[in-house]
Amino acid sequence: MTVLKNDRYIRAALRQPVDCTPVWMMRQAGRYLPEYRALRAEAGNFMALATNPELACEVTLQPLRRFDLDAAILFSDILTIPDAMGLGLHFVAGEGPAFHNPVRTAQDVNNLFVPDPHDKLKYVVDAVSTIRKALNGDVPLIGFSGSPWTLATYMVEGGATKNFSLIKSMLYAEPHLLHSLLDTLAESVIVYLNAQIEAGAQAVMIFDTWGGVLTPRDYKEFSLRYMEKIVAGVKREHEGEKIPVTLFTKNGGAWLDIMADTGCDALGVDWTTDLKDARAKVSNRVALQGNMDPSVLYSSPDRIRSEVKTILDSYGLGAGHIFNLGHGIHQTVDPEHAKAFVDAVHELSRPLHIPAG
Amino acid sequence: MTVLKNDRYIRAALRQPVDCTPVWMMRQAGRYLPEYRALRAEAGNFMALATNPELACEVTLQPLRRFDLDAAILFSDILTIPDAMGLGLHFVAGEGPAFHNPVRTAQDVNNLFVPDPHDKLKYVVDAVSTIRKALNGDVPLIGFSGSPWTLATYMVEGGATKNFSLIKSMLYAEPHLLHSLLDTLAESVIVYLNAQIEAGAQAVMIFDTWGGVLTPRDYKEFSLRYMEKIVAGVKREHEGEKIPVTLFTKNGGAWLDIMADTGCDALGVDWTTDLKDARAKVSNRVALQGNMDPSVLYSSPDRIRSEVKTILDSYGLGAGHIFNLGHGIHQTVDPEHAKAFVDAVHELSRPLHIPAG
Repeated sequence: MTVLKNDRYIRAALRQPVDCTPVWMMRQAGRYLPEYRALRAEAGNFMALATNPELACEVTLQPLRRFDLDAAILFSDILTIPDAMGLGLHFVAGEGPAFHNPVRTAQDVNNLFVPDPHDKLKYVVDAVSTIRKALNGDVPLIGFSGSPWTLATYMVEGGATKNFSLIKSMLYAEPHLLHSLLDTLAESVIVYLNAQIEAGAQAVMIFDTWGGVLTPRDYKEFSLRYMEKIVAGVKREHEGEKIPVTLFTKNGGAWLDIMADTGCDALGVDWTTDLKDARAKVSNRVALQGNMDPSVLYSSPDRIRSEVKTILDSYGLGAGHIFNLGHGIHQTVDPEHAKAFVDAVHELSRPLHIPAG
Repeated sequence: MTVLKNDRYIRAALRQPVDCTPVWMMRQAGRYLPEYRALRAEAGNFMALATNPELACEVTLQPLRRFDLDAAILFSDILTIPDAMGLGLHFVAGEGPAFHNPVRTAQDVNNLFVPDPHDKLKYVVDAVSTIRKALNGDVPLIGFSGSPWTLATYMVEGGATKNFSLIKSMLYAEPHLLHSLLDTLAESVIVYLNAQIEAGAQAVMIFDTWGGVLTPRDYKEFSLRYMEKIVAGVKREHEGEKIPVTLFTKNGGAWLDIMADTGCDALGVDWTTDLKDARAKVSNRVALQGNMDPSVLYSSPDRIRSEVKTILDSYGLGAGHIFNLGHGIHQTVDPEHAKAFVDAVHELSRPLHIPAG
C-alpha cells in the first residue's frame, strides 16, 4: 500500500501533534453536490450507487475534488447489515429507509445470522478497496457501521420512527430478546468492520444515531455495552498502521466520560455540548470530533468563519481535535459555504498547533 | 374561590413537604383515551375542541375521572399565540401543525403584535375559568404556553421541522431580527399566562420543546433569556396563593443549572438525565418534574411499577419532586397502564415522605 501523504486525520485521532486541525464532513458525499445529484439520477436511486463499487468510489471522491478535506469516508448506508440479513431494505420517498421483513418475535431474532462480508456485503468490501486504490494515499479512508442499538431500532420498527414504540416495548418487556438481537448485531459489525479494514479502511467510525433516546441506564445496557464489544473486537492495527476507532452517539453529550471508557480512540460530539466541556469530561483519554451545527453553513462565509473560530478556541491548544459538523451536512447547503468552512478550519487552526520549544 | 382539596402538586412545586409524590402526565387529556377520541370525532378536529370552552373543559376532566391525578392541565395547543397573531394555524394530516402565513422577513416580524388575551385568545381564558369552576378545588389547574424560541421555530419554518433550516438561517444571519421576534413573543406569553392566572390557573408551565436543538451559547441567548423574562413577568402570586412556574426544555438536561438561575420554581426533566444527577445540579434551588420515558407505559404494570420505584429512588428522600413522564403520553398506550403508573407513584412514594421527628 502507498504511504499516506496527508495523515492529519489519523494523527489527530491518535492525539498526536499536527500542523493544523484536520477536517471532514459527515455526509460529505451527498445531495448538496450537483455532481452527486447527477450521478444519482443516472443510477436511479441511492442503493444503485451504494452497491456499485465504481459508482460508490466516484461519489466518495467528489467532495475531495472540491474541498481540501483531510479524510474520505466510504459511501454506503448504515443499514447494509440488516439488508444482508434478509430484511429487504428499500427507501420510501419522503419517509426514508424501510424493511420488508422487520424483526419482532423470538423466531425473527433466532432466524438472524452474522452475514459473511465477502458474500452479501461484498459490494461494500469491493467499494472500500476500489476507493482506497483511487485515493492513492492522498488522505485516509474511513470505514463505518451503524451501532447495534441504532441498527436494531430500524430492524424492529421496520424503518424510521419518532417514538421508538416497538423497540422500547421489546426493551422493557423482553430485554433478553433484545440482548440476543444486539449480540448478533455486535458480532456482525465486528466482522463487517474488520473486512473493511482488511480491504483498506484506515479508520472506522460507529454511528449511534439513536442512543440518545435512551435513559442513562438503558444507554449503558443496550447501546454502549455493544459498542464496547466492537471496540474490543475490531483490528486496531493493520499492516503496521494503527486504525483509530471513533464512536458517535447523537445527543450523547452527557455520556462522553463513559464512552471514553470503552477504549476507543475518538468520540464524535454534536453541537449541544461545548468542546471545552467535552474535553474536560474525557480528560485527554480520547480525541474529539466535531462539532459545528450543520445549519451554520446556511449563513455567510464570514459568519461560518467566526463560528469555526469559536469552536477551535473552545477545544483550545494542542492535538486531539478533528473538526467536523455535529451531524450530516444538509442537502440544501451551498457547496461554496462548505468550501469556506473547510478552508477556515485549516487557516484559523494553525496558531493552535505551534510546536513546543 | 374554593379551597384546594389536594394541594400536593403546588406544595411539591414549592418544595414543601407532602404525604406522597404528586403525579400528572403531559398530554394526559388526549388520544390514548377512547372518550377523548369519541369527543374529538364528534367535534371534527383538535382546534374545534380547543376553541370551545365547554368541550375543552370536558376533555381536561376526562383523565381525572379515570386516574388519581394530582393536577389538571388546560387542554389547548402551544400555537394559540401565533394563531392569534394572524398566522393561520391549521393541522395537516400526518404532518402536524402548519401556518398559512409564516414569518420570514423583517416586514413579517414588524407586522406582529402582542395579542390581547381577552380578544382572539378569549376562548383560552374562558376555558381556564370554566375548568377551574368545574374542578371545584379537587386539584390545581395548570396553565401553559410554548416558549418564545419554540413558538418562533414553528412561525418561521411554517410548521414542524426536522432540520430547523429556516429558523437557524435567521439565527445565524439575522440575529437582531430573531431577537425582535422573540421579544414580541416573550411579551405575548407574559400577557397570555397572566390572563390564564387571573382566570384561575393555579400554576403555569412553559414548554420549550425545541431549545435542545441549539448550541449551549445559542440556547442561553435565544431560548433561556426569553424564558427568564417570562419568569420575571408572570404573576407569582394571585389571590393570596403562590403560582409556581415550571420550565421544561426537552433535551435540556445539560442546562438544568442555568435554567434554575432564572428564578423559576420547578424544572421539567426528560428521561435522558437521572433525577439524582439533576437534583445534584440544581442543589435544591428548584423542584423537579419528571421523568419516566413514556414508552415504559407499553410494558406490563409490574415493569411500570419497577421503573416508578427506580425513578422515585433516584430523586430520593424529601419534597420537591413532581412525578411525570419525560414527554407526552403516546396515543397507543393502554389507559389501564396509565392507571398502574399513577397508582404506583402514590403507593411507592409514601415511605420517602415520612415526616421528620
